[in-house]
Amino acid sequence: MCAAQETSDEDTPWGEVTPEAARRLLVAAVDAFAERGYHATTTRDIAGRAGMSPAALYIHYKTKEELLHRISKIGHERALCVLDTEADRDGTAAERLAGAVRSFVRWHAERHTTARVVQYELDALGEEHRTEIVALRRRSDAVVRRIIGEGVRDGEFDVPDVPGTALAVLSLCIDVARWFNARGSRTPDEVGELYAGLVLRMVGARQVQK
Amino acid sequence: MCAAQETSDEDTPWGEVTPEAARRLLVAAVDAFAERGYHATTTRDIAGRAGMSPAALYIHYKTKEELLHRISKIGHERALCVLDTEADRDGTAAERLAGAVRSFVRWHAERHTTARVVQYELDALGEEHRTEIVALRRRSDAVVRRIIGEGVRDGEFDVPDVPGTALAVLSLCIDVARWFNARGSRTPDEVGELYAGLVLRMVGARQVQK
Repeated sequence: MCAAQETSDEDTPWGEVTPEAARRLLVAAVDAFAERGYHATTTRDIAGRAGMSPAALYIHYKTKEELLHRISKIGHERALCVLDTEADRDGTAAERLAGAVRSFVRWHAERHTTARVVQYELDALGEEHRTEIVALRRRSDAVVRRIIGEGVRDGEFDVPDVPGTALAVLSLCIDVARWFNARGSRTPDEVGELYAGLVLRMVGARQVQK
Repeated sequence: MCAAQETSDEDTPWGEVTPEAARRLLVAAVDAFAERGYHATTTRDIAGRAGMSPAALYIHYKTKEELLHRISKIGHERALCVLDTEADRDGTAAERLAGAVRSFVRWHAERHTTARVVQYELDALGEEHRTEIVALRRRSDAVVRRIIGEGVRDGEFDVPDVPGTALAVLSLCIDVARWFNARGSRTPDEVGELYAGLVLRMVGARQVQK
């Protein structure tokens, strides 16, 4: 299901959001939030970008916060799905950690506009919604901690501080959304490959990849 | 001069900004930008937070963008100063790189509100000002690349991709500003220590610190 979600996304951004008007509004909201920030964006701006009236927006989303919540929830679920898919593969801990980093980096590079909104506008969520998103983030942390923990248990990795190292690994990948530039000199795949190698060094993987 | 700047900052935030009214406006602008974003903040909001009239603000800053530029310039100069100070110490490349990471992390943890504004509102700067800030960022990159390059030259480090590794090291440190929470379980010093160890692993330092 995860994989299908990602595939559909290649053709139509946010393809899982229906009906089409709701999807278009969501795409417009991501662009507006990324460009001007959540607080400087009005529902009128979003409707206008989607070529719709404010009244048409309210059929699908009661508030601007509901749009942000929808974006944040789908964004976090997809990121978690990317990590889960790699964590559950067959292979050594090093192979799975490298795979998770490659995919997570690629996701943040290719979808950096969405990722920035999702990462930087957390405080604008209502309390209940923020609690829900924080729980999703904890699950992502747990996936990375689990792979690293398994590597330590099997003698593949040497990691004095597993939670701290997992935090650093995720932080390194997430920050790709801040600096990545599609016109820059490195492709998402190249950054993923570089980072997979650096992360294997961070965990003291026995066969360090160059 | 760098060190003095940092010391004065402990007592009075943005102590180098004079007169006092200009300093208070700058502190108010950082808080407002961090809370609501640059585009959602008006000069009236900033003046109000500083307990001043909009007319009083215009004596010191002609536009909102001038405030952002001032914040961004001082912020970037301080961050560069932190790196330069560590890079120019006596010691092995490993000692200097670890010192730079410790100080840079501590800076981003302790001043995470300023650092977020400085990092996330770059696009709001006018073209000329952005060019100036990008030049300061390139100098920070160059400092880290230089230390890593010296370590490779002296046989201390094993780094296949020096520019990519320098980028990752800076990114890891900068992202501390996003996730750091003063009420969290790790102090700025503890994060700095953890990250110094991880970075020495990333560069394949011969004597890896635990």
